[in-house]
Amino acid sequence: MKMNQIKELHDPTVAWFPAPVVLVSCTNGEKANIITIAWTGVVCSQPPLISVSIRPSRFSYKLISNSGEFVVNIPTSTQLEETKLCGSKTGKDTNKWAACGFTPVKATKISVPLIKECPINIECIVVKTLTDIGTHSIFIGEVQVVHVDPQAAPKSTLDVIPLCYSPKSGIFGESSAINEED
Amino acid sequence: MKMNQIKELHDPTVAWFPAPVVLVSCTNGEKANIITIAWTGVVCSQPPLISVSIRPSRFSYKLISNSGEFVVNIPTSTQLEETKLCGSKTGKDTNKWAACGFTPVKATKISVPLIKECPINIECIVVKTLTDIGTHSIFIGEVQVVHVDPQAAPKSTLDVIPLCYSPKSGIFGESSAINEED
Repeated sequence: MKMNQIKELHDPTVAWFPAPVVLVSCTNGEKANIITIAWTGVVCSQPPLISVSIRPSRFSYKLISNSGEFVVNIPTSTQLEETKLCGSKTGKDTNKWAACGFTPVKATKISVPLIKECPINIECIVVKTLTDIGTHSIFIGEVQVVHVDPQAAPKSTLDVIPLCYSPKSGIFGESSAINEED
Repeated sequence: MKMNQIKELHDPTVAWFPAPVVLVSCTNGEKANIITIAWTGVVCSQPPLISVSIRPSRFSYKLISNSGEFVVNIPTSTQLEETKLCGSKTGKDTNKWAACGFTPVKATKISVPLIKECPINIECIVVKTLTDIGTHSIFIGEVQVVHVDPQAAPKSTLDVIPLCYSPKSGIFGESSAINEED
C-alpha cells in the first residue's frame, strides 16, 4: 500500500466493516426457518453473548421475538449458494431446508432445530432486545451450548470465517474470489 | 464433512463464533490509544451502527466512555504483529503508535486520530452504551464517515476479513495459517 495514497471519503455506511456471514435458524414450533445474517457479532465473553440484527418486517424476526430462541449455524465456504438462497427468499413462501438440502436436527437446550450440515451450531436464548434504533432491531442471545464437528477446528483464516459479505459482491468465500474485472 | 460425524458438545462460549479483528483508536484529547477488538459487529444499516465491546477495566474504555467517540481501523493481514501488540499491551504504559510504527492522522468529523497505515478507517460517535451485561460493556457507534484506500476494494475473502480470532491460535490471518501440528 502506498503511504501517500489519498484515501476516498465515503458517506456514512457500514459497508466497509468486515462482516462474517452466518445462518440463523428459528421456529414457531410448527415451522422452522433459516435466515442469512451478516449484521452479527460477539458482544460479551461472560456471560457468552452474541448479537444478531434483523429487520422487524422479516418472517424470522417474529419467530425469534415470539420464541426467544435462535441458533447461529456457521456455514462452510462450500455452502455459498445455500447461504445466498437463505438470504434472498422468505420463509413465508419457501421451505429453505428442502431448497438447500439442509437437515434439521434437534437441539440440546432449546426448541430450534440445528442445521446438521453446518460444522458449528451455537444455541442461544434471547436475553435482551433493542428496538427503535433504526432499520434493524438487535437480539442479544446468551449461548447455551455449542455443537462442533471435530474436523471444524480452524486451520486457516478461511476456516474461521468461511463466508463474508461485501457491498460490491454480496456474499462470497474462498471458492468465489472476486475477479478484478467484476 | 462426514454426515454421520458426531459433533462434540461444548460448554457455553463465544469461542466458535467467526470473529474479525479490528483496531479501535480513541483519545482523551491529550493521549491517543489503540486497542485490538474482536468482539465487534454491525448492528444496523440505517442509521449505520457498529458495536464494540470492551471490559470496563481497560484504559480505552475510559477514553471512549468520556469522549463518546472512536475510530474502527481495519488492519491488513500484514499488520498481524502490530494487531497482536495492540491487544496485549496497555496504553497506560505503552505508546502503541510508536511501538507499531503507526501514524496518527486527523479525522474528518471527530477528535480521534485515524491509523494512516490501515486501509479503511470508520469514524464513529457513541449513540448508546449497554453496561451491566457481563464482563464487557457495549458501545454502539454511529458511523460519521469512512476513509477508504481505493486499492482496498476487496478481491477475495481475505481482503474483507484480513485478520480473525480463534481461541486455539489467537489472532491470525493469511500470512499465518495454522500448522496442523500446532
